[in-house]
Amino acid sequence: MREVLAESAFELFLERGFERTTVDDIVARAGVGRRSFFRYFPSKEDAVFPDHERCLADMTAFLAANGAGDPVDRVCEAARIVLRMYAANPEFSVQRYRLTREVPGLRTYELSVVRRYERTLAGYLRGRYGGVRDGALRAEVIAAAVVAAHNNGLRSWLRSGGAGDPEAAVDHALALVREVWGSPARPARPMIDARVGDPGVRDGDDREVIVIVAPKSAPLWRVVQRVEAALGE
Amino acid sequence: MREVLAESAFELFLERGFERTTVDDIVARAGVGRRSFFRYFPSKEDAVFPDHERCLADMTAFLAANGAGDPVDRVCEAARIVLRMYAANPEFSVQRYRLTREVPGLRTYELSVVRRYERTLAGYLRGRYGGVRDGALRAEVIAAAVVAAHNNGLRSWLRSGGAGDPEAAVDHALALVREVWGSPARPARPMIDARVGDPGVRDGDDREVIVIVAPKSAPLWRVVQRVEAALGE
Repeated sequence: MREVLAESAFELFLERGFERTTVDDIVARAGVGRRSFFRYFPSKEDAVFPDHERCLADMTAFLAANGAGDPVDRVCEAARIVLRMYAANPEFSVQRYRLTREVPGLRTYELSVVRRYERTLAGYLRGRYGGVRDGALRAEVIAAAVVAAHNNGLRSWLRSGGAGDPEAAVDHALALVREVWGSPARPARPMIDARVGDPGVRDGDDREVIVIVAPKSAPLWRVVQRVEAALGE
Repeated sequence: MREVLAESAFELFLERGFERTTVDDIVARAGVGRRSFFRYFPSKEDAVFPDHERCLADMTAFLAANGAGDPVDRVCEAARIVLRMYAANPEFSVQRYRLTREVPGLRTYELSVVRRYERTLAGYLRGRYGGVRDGALRAEVIAAAVVAAHNNGLRSWLRSGGAGDPEAAVDHALALVREVWGSPARPARPMIDARVGDPGVRDGDDREVIVIVAPKSAPLWRVVQRVEAALGE
């Protein structure tokens, strides 16, 4: 019933436009009573995004069940739950993306949903960073960065009309966040030596260390990029 | 006139609540006609945030006029324009913060405004990162991180009832973003040596380099923290 209502609503939004479609139109198309609609959807906007509530619940459950490991990896993994929801139905996702661009009320609704994902990720990170200086600040900044990266990858895919591999686009975007905020990878090699710019010293020691030698003027992310390259990522 | 309307509106929102105050109530209190209200404010929500449009224009002008220098420093400086708008009127800002917490429509409005600031910062960064790999992605992630950090500092101050120095709170929060995304500082000393965890090697060279020696398991931000400490920031 819920699916039939969401499908009928979406058909009408595409045919007549979102603003010109009433809840009465939707229930008539679905062949049910008006109260049925509001049993499943608090508003017309909610019918455009029928899967976000489930997706938020899945994200919360995933983070609750996966407390260990690098916290940034975990929230990136949690963000991919949203991506997979979009990727499961490319045609619908692309059509909805176009509809959302045209209807201010849907854009606002989407902002609220995005904010809820961000708060879910930040809440998890706050818990993980409980003992860390500026833990709450760090949690909010990283959550915002993860959401921005995820949405950048997702939007590229949606704008392309659903061509190519959305997981690859989002993974590529999330890698940028992981490389500056996550723990460095721990490869099998006992010693990594990454150089940026002019060569400098190297560590001859066999302890598990990374040595970075860089001109002081190099932006940090460039240094990080080279380290990741040296790590073979 | 605009100010009188905004003040009348805010008085009424505090007295009666936002939902129960009509535009007719506001214009009656201000002693003007109904059309005057809509000449200045598209909606009741806009009257709660009368300064954001000017602030967005100031931010855009600031970024257009200050194209050079470290891009991350520039967007942090631009974000401070918003902070100063809040700090200029602590009592109003704190009362509005409390009102916004209680009214879903105002929270949604605020999300839209925050998004517009974020897009303004991202647009500037995209221009600066035109030749950089993943420039647009980087621009969006950094803009989101700057906004999240700014809002973390601003909210701490608002939650405290406007006690203490809001600029200090926001600067502290923005420092976290600058330390991972900005170019490292260039102090007068020709050589910096920062150690994290077990001691390792040092560079005996006098070229302008930073040497970081850290256990591979150390999260990158901890390494950065130590480097910043060594730089005396």
